[in-house]
Amino acid sequence: MDIPTPKGFLFSAIEAGIKYANRYDLALIHSKKQAQVAGVFTTNQIKAAPVKICMKRIKGGLAQSIILNSGNANACTGKRGMEDALEITEKLAAKLEIKKEHVLPLSTGVIGMPLPMEKILPALDKLVAQLGKADALLVAKAIMTTDTFPKISYRQIEWNGRVITLLGICKGAGMISPNMATMLGVILTDAKIDSFSLQELLRNAVSNSFNSITVDGDMSTNDTVLMLANGQSESEKIDKKSLLYKEFKASLNDLCLELAKMIVRDGEGATKVITINVVGAKTAGDAKRIAKAVAHSPLVKTAFYGEDPNWGRIIAAVGYAGVPIKEENIEILINGICLFEKGLPTMREDELKDSLRQKEIEVFINLNLGKSKAKIYTTDLSEEYIRINSAYRT
Amino acid sequence: MDIPTPKGFLFSAIEAGIKYANRYDLALIHSKKQAQVAGVFTTNQIKAAPVKICMKRIKGGLAQSIILNSGNANACTGKRGMEDALEITEKLAAKLEIKKEHVLPLSTGVIGMPLPMEKILPALDKLVAQLGKADALLVAKAIMTTDTFPKISYRQIEWNGRVITLLGICKGAGMISPNMATMLGVILTDAKIDSFSLQELLRNAVSNSFNSITVDGDMSTNDTVLMLANGQSESEKIDKKSLLYKEFKASLNDLCLELAKMIVRDGEGATKVITINVVGAKTAGDAKRIAKAVAHSPLVKTAFYGEDPNWGRIIAAVGYAGVPIKEENIEILINGICLFEKGLPTMREDELKDSLRQKEIEVFINLNLGKSKAKIYTTDLSEEYIRINSAYRT
Repeated sequence: MDIPTPKGFLFSAIEAGIKYANRYDLALIHSKKQAQVAGVFTTNQIKAAPVKICMKRIKGGLAQSIILNSGNANACTGKRGMEDALEITEKLAAKLEIKKEHVLPLSTGVIGMPLPMEKILPALDKLVAQLGKADALLVAKAIMTTDTFPKISYRQIEWNGRVITLLGICKGAGMISPNMATMLGVILTDAKIDSFSLQELLRNAVSNSFNSITVDGDMSTNDTVLMLANGQSESEKIDKKSLLYKEFKASLNDLCLELAKMIVRDGEGATKVITINVVGAKTAGDAKRIAKAVAHSPLVKTAFYGEDPNWGRIIAAVGYAGVPIKEENIEILINGICLFEKGLPTMREDELKDSLRQKEIEVFINLNLGKSKAKIYTTDLSEEYIRINSAYRT
Repeated sequence: MDIPTPKGFLFSAIEAGIKYANRYDLALIHSKKQAQVAGVFTTNQIKAAPVKICMKRIKGGLAQSIILNSGNANACTGKRGMEDALEITEKLAAKLEIKKEHVLPLSTGVIGMPLPMEKILPALDKLVAQLGKADALLVAKAIMTTDTFPKISYRQIEWNGRVITLLGICKGAGMISPNMATMLGVILTDAKIDSFSLQELLRNAVSNSFNSITVDGDMSTNDTVLMLANGQSESEKIDKKSLLYKEFKASLNDLCLELAKMIVRDGEGATKVITINVVGAKTAGDAKRIAKAVAHSPLVKTAFYGEDPNWGRIIAAVGYAGVPIKEENIEILINGICLFEKGLPTMREDELKDSLRQKEIEVFINLNLGKSKAKIYTTDLSEEYIRINSAYRT
């Protein structure tokens, strides 16, 4: 895949030996010019040091560099963790000759271990020296933990003969839940847009993508999606009332959804991507709560892994989601085949045998109570998930 | 184990071939005299037909017989499911020459399949004829589904030279969540006590036992615990203000907790029983919510399966439970070893290596915010859980 880079961004990635030898684990994204910045963060009350720093720094509306590491989350590391992250960004800022407040740190990996500063600090010179020698794909590789493939994509908008590029990279495979998880995401664009609009657009895009996926229902301490817009495209400034704004919004939403689905597809041990589509709810909140209950049910997930059209486990999860329902109103379809309606099984399971072998499964639940809906993307649950997570130290 | 039976109760169990041949799957518990009755039921909004019938009938305060089957839950079976369950209890009542309202049906097994009436109805004569020829252990065996062992226990109270016996049987191994699950429980006693007190005692006992266990967080459509007190003991009537009441309450709580722990120990694929003990919460609800979040976390469960003292996953679950906390106040101990306090890791993981190989693990979480607490019993999560549930049709 030939991935176009938004203008004015440089990349670097090196092997710092943070947790393992011989793998890229420290990366730098640098904009030649100061960029407008936006961010969406974990709602977990236990927040890693880099998350706290990013949350504070993006309030200024400007950023220029993002330093990313895998192998260590710098979470639950107390005062020292905070000091370490601050020191890294400060030293890096000096080398890049930019303000330290414009450097944003992102970490992913083991919780509760101090960062190996003796490895990271001496590596900063090389990291800066290599700027421009790596591409975004290498950055995507450097932030992988249990991911089995790097996650990167882009969108381009042609507007009056000029091009705007959006580039997205992310990581995540386990600890994935609605409201994000052990996921990091960075969206870079050369669009001209103010940080206020950017924040609004990013929050909206994340809500329907990274916040609508779940692998295991666990939510991490480090989830962050950052977006930088450096205005280096020759296209016009994106005004909220313009058609270009709509175009840009659609491209961003689309890009985030594509990246989010990559995370689901790479869900630890996943053999299938399952879309839980709830309609006919009284409120969007009700719909999302039911979709989450179904998506989180280990019994539903193991049934799909076993290619068993077990709508009984689905309706049981609908029933315990904590949302008022009427059994006799509920319709449940799997891959377009209706299995339960008007309070009764349709006994059509046999028609599903072939389609359950597919890698993509759609569960459609109509509550027939209202007009609201929600969609959640999740995975099945396999022995491989257990193997990965009983051995991996987060 | 020699299990004493409360006076005046008879048992019967037969092979009716409901789902499989050559296994006991239909059972009857009968009290010679009308008994005071109490019941606690699933809070799932999707309730199986037998649950709805029991909920209605126990309001009368009296019952005499319980008919139990495995292999079919008679859930999501609409009007026909209700008619089937009513017909069974009616025919059985006629044969037993008691009121149909005094017969309570309990079903467990596959959801969404009609009961095989052509097998059950002809079997009723034999079921009644065999009354007194089976013991309670055979009834416990007849209600097993994915259980690997029958679950039965008892308590006896000696009071002024008279004996009161409490006998409990239950089933359940998966779909186990706080607020009960695919579990059925029956407590029989020969105590003299009114149904109002019985209901209060049972609700309290269930809250700290069957409602404090979780295997997979799934809650079923059929969960029921029934209690019958037929007054056939020669001991005095149990008055709410008496010492005997306290004694009886303690015995009942203890019996329910023992049975509940059997369910956890038999949790599908479980290799360990994990107690999540949350203290120092502002409210009991807060404590329970945090205990549940930790107990349900697939990452915590797989870590214990891997014998990894991964407190990072525990604190992440504490952080997303939706309860206000202070990171710097939290203490986390596993098997008595403190791993996190004052916002910092203690780095004492090595001391845990041996004790994590034990079958019983205790996680102790002190929020240091208040005086409330909660305890949840759960299991680890192994490949075997996946194997069982991707093959078994509930």
